Amino acid sequence: MTSSSNRVVIFDTTLRDGEQSPGCSMNLEEKLRVAQVLEEMRVDVIEAGFPIASNGDFEAVREVAKVIRTSRVAGLARAARRDIDRAWEALQGAARPRLHTFLSTSPLHMKYKLQMEPEQVHEAVVDSVSYARRLCDDVEWSPEDGSRTEHDFLCRCVESAIKAGAGTINIPDTVGYAVPEEFAALIAMLMNRVPNIDKAVISVHCHNDLGLAVANSLAAVRAGARQVECTINGIGERAGNASLEEIVMALRTRQDAMPYTSGIKTELITKASRLVSTITGFQVQPNKAIVGANAFAHEAGIHQDGVLKNAQTYEIMTPESVGLNRSTLVMGKHSGRHAFREKLKELGFELGDNMLQEAFRRFKELADKKKDVYDEDIIALVDDEVGRSKDHIRFVSLQVVCGSKGPQTADLELEIDGTVKLAHATGDGPVDATFNCIKKLVPHTARLQLFQVQAVTGGTDAQAEVTVRLEEEGKTVNGQGADTDTLVASCRAYVHALNKLLIKREKTEPAALSA
Amino acid sequence: MTSSSNRVVIFDTTLRDGEQSPGCSMNLEEKLRVAQVLEEMRVDVIEAGFPIASNGDFEAVREVAKVIRTSRVAGLARAARRDIDRAWEALQGAARPRLHTFLSTSPLHMKYKLQMEPEQVHEAVVDSVSYARRLCDDVEWSPEDGSRTEHDFLCRCVESAIKAGAGTINIPDTVGYAVPEEFAALIAMLMNRVPNIDKAVISVHCHNDLGLAVANSLAAVRAGARQVECTINGIGERAGNASLEEIVMALRTRQDAMPYTSGIKTELITKASRLVSTITGFQVQPNKAIVGANAFAHEAGIHQDGVLKNAQTYEIMTPESVGLNRSTLVMGKHSGRHAFREKLKELGFELGDNMLQEAFRRFKELADKKKDVYDEDIIALVDDEVGRSKDHIRFVSLQVVCGSKGPQTADLELEIDGTVKLAHATGDGPVDATFNCIKKLVPHTARLQLFQVQAVTGGTDAQAEVTVRLEEEGKTVNGQGADTDTLVASCRAYVHALNKLLIKREKTEPAALSA
Repeated sequence: MTSSSNRVVIFDTTLRDGEQSPGCSMNLEEKLRVAQVLEEMRVDVIEAGFPIASNGDFEAVREVAKVIRTSRVAGLARAARRDIDRAWEALQGAARPRLHTFLSTSPLHMKYKLQMEPEQVHEAVVDSVSYARRLCDDVEWSPEDGSRTEHDFLCRCVESAIKAGAGTINIPDTVGYAVPEEFAALIAMLMNRVPNIDKAVISVHCHNDLGLAVANSLAAVRAGARQVECTINGIGERAGNASLEEIVMALRTRQDAMPYTSGIKTELITKASRLVSTITGFQVQPNKAIVGANAFAHEAGIHQDGVLKNAQTYEIMTPESVGLNRSTLVMGKHSGRHAFREKLKELGFELGDNMLQEAFRRFKELADKKKDVYDEDIIALVDDEVGRSKDHIRFVSLQVVCGSKGPQTADLELEIDGTVKLAHATGDGPVDATFNCIKKLVPHTARLQLFQVQAVTGGTDAQAEVTVRLEEEGKTVNGQGADTDTLVASCRAYVHALNKLLIKREKTEPAALSA
Repeated sequence: MTSSSNRVVIFDTTLRDGEQSPGCSMNLEEKLRVAQVLEEMRVDVIEAGFPIASNGDFEAVREVAKVIRTSRVAGLARAARRDIDRAWEALQGAARPRLHTFLSTSPLHMKYKLQMEPEQVHEAVVDSVSYARRLCDDVEWSPEDGSRTEHDFLCRCVESAIKAGAGTINIPDTVGYAVPEEFAALIAMLMNRVPNIDKAVISVHCHNDLGLAVANSLAAVRAGARQVECTINGIGERAGNASLEEIVMALRTRQDAMPYTSGIKTELITKASRLVSTITGFQVQPNKAIVGANAFAHEAGIHQDGVLKNAQTYEIMTPESVGLNRSTLVMGKHSGRHAFREKLKELGFELGDNMLQEAFRRFKELADKKKDVYDEDIIALVDDEVGRSKDHIRFVSLQVVCGSKGPQTADLELEIDGTVKLAHATGDGPVDATFNCIKKLVPHTARLQLFQVQAVTGGTDAQAEVTVRLEEEGKTVNGQGADTDTLVASCRAYVHALNKLLIKREKTEPAALSA
């Protein structure tokens, strides 16, 4: 593919740069779910991880590579042969593998981070790209901190990387420093000055520190870039990456001003956004473009009036174009197992028999407690079940006495490796008392970093969805739990996180990562 | 002020367009608190509301106008004399009042929304601006949906508005449709074609539907605009407005590429962001630029390593430049009343004696329960107290029994207009049981729209801060509550919201609003 086409390649790095967000970590099963939705929405390239960084990253890339058939799967590697070998090993099962290797080229990074001279850096670029290309036909090279790299040196490295076999050259604005005109000029400069530039697709990778990641990416496309690196909900290091949904919808909505197309099935945007937000515990703010709860809501009377008279007066996209539909009342206490299974399929869940049985039991319980059961309720409930069958620790029951008169006490039963155990504890508040019970039953040193509760739908009988983030020796995990009882949901979320931590403990330490 | 200067006027519309966000509504006392922080951070113009829209809006503009001395205070009005009169009445106490009047000029809006011919619209522009200018020296005029207005007609209306006395011409991208090059070209077109354009400051007002509000605003500044309309945290209709913090920090960080300055004291950005987020219940997502929890956090090992070697490798702004400092351990159970009062002053709270006494009592209670008391804990606690002294309903005590074994029951004491009353109720979960008690004691038909819980700091003994949003007949209110007991915090938040609703009931219906 050359840059003369108007097709923009969408390269999603939710599983790599997105997962590097502080506090965000996904386990293998979660990464697979995200990858499957990305493939379903026709993302061209899925960057699945950084295999050398940890065994967990390696396994994630390997498993994603095995499962994904139509999207390309990329693995990241630094300029060292050991890194590249490890990435290539992880990509063995891929139908369409891509090796992505990078090295810093800015004066600041070369001097302080790499402590290398420009000549050494240039040599390493040629060596690493040539080596990668001997392994894999599809090689991408990135000059880290590209937007702050001296132009002559950047041109030289890009030319050499293409000569060495890179089919994609990605220019990262690593620190989110660029502004659109300047960034477009940088891309135009490369298009004009690098003699073999037509042999590669130019890509951009923008960070959002100044709120300009999307604008910088689009400006680069106008200047000739034909791949954009982005993430769902714009997650990523610091202020995150360019948002996939904003890039894609801007291109779709403003075809007249920007005659470029992506291959994305935009109707899956809302689904992908919710999945990533649930898994990472990173809530999307209501005023986030495209996927915020208010993005398609109209408050002011005059706006509502305008929308009723002609939707175009205030709406430039339809909610349906991003897959946003009204909550539908679907299930009640009389719904049977067959209907429940059909509904799950419609919502994108395929459960095994045991899991289905457990989910159905909890659905009936919920239907007894809650008047209206919405799609969101079922999603929360199933999210709470899926992939937990192999858990070491399972929630059995909880009883809490609390309030302003104190003391707050909790009695908790957990099943630990098949044996039910009981604990009683007090605490500063019911959540503290409940969590103290867990600590009695499963001693651990992890620290609670985040605790948040959302009602799944409106109404006081809504299910609460709780996210808990635990940190132990630099490793963070997120757990989710759902129940109409906030404290039961909190307990389930904590237990979920703890189960993840137990798995993480078994793995090796992560090495130094990079963007 | 003419556009030859490089000083960009910052026009904050958090209290007007921001408050039009679905689910966001601030009461008078909250608006005053926001206005005071805006003035403290040296916002040039504070748009305080839309006086004709409701009595609440009128009062808010009137009170803000009375209190704010250095910033200009603007009131919004449609093109009708009645609207303008009402806005001018609200601005009577202002030291530096501005009348802001607007009318749609795009073909779509003129035809479907206004049902007026262009000639009539032009006449109304001249009439409304002339009328406003007879009342007030400082008049701003906005062609609503300006970015989709036919150029010849836009030039004609702008020229006439300036001739009629408008000192500021604001071009809104009402539906968030513009892309930067196009929007810059629109501003350049006006600069070139409108003969008297040098008599006015050109302003822009961008919405974020495609994620481009900040980029569009900055592109417009480069093309000659010298006022930017924006909001704290980018709140506003649908996907919101351009974020004040992103605009201001982009200008400050990229002085080399954009030689324009704002007068904003950036060190107050974090304070303003947290205040607006607490009051509106609109959480800022962790990867939001500038004010997100992760904006200055570094996760990946290689990044941390780089930052340690030289902060500039990955940091283009310092956390201190936006007023972000590490949590400091400040108070313990032995801290006295004097130290507490001093700490409150440092945090920006000046409480009367009664309120101080109550806050101090709750601080001592908290210090008994919680090992470490941070600045954030004190802010949450005081937020929970301030402005509630005149409440009809006050929390007294709560006792809850709950868990997975059911039934969940609550016993609640509330003081209602001075009399303590007790209720007992069951529910689907402890929150439902607690809220059912409230409904028994204070019958009402409001529906719970939002329920969310955040831990104020890390650790299982952290205070929970709960936000509750109630909706009754189209009126929405947010309540907050903080306590180490999640259920007590939930109850306090619900009672807070209910108190606000009682006040709101006493006011008139809001009329049709606009952006």
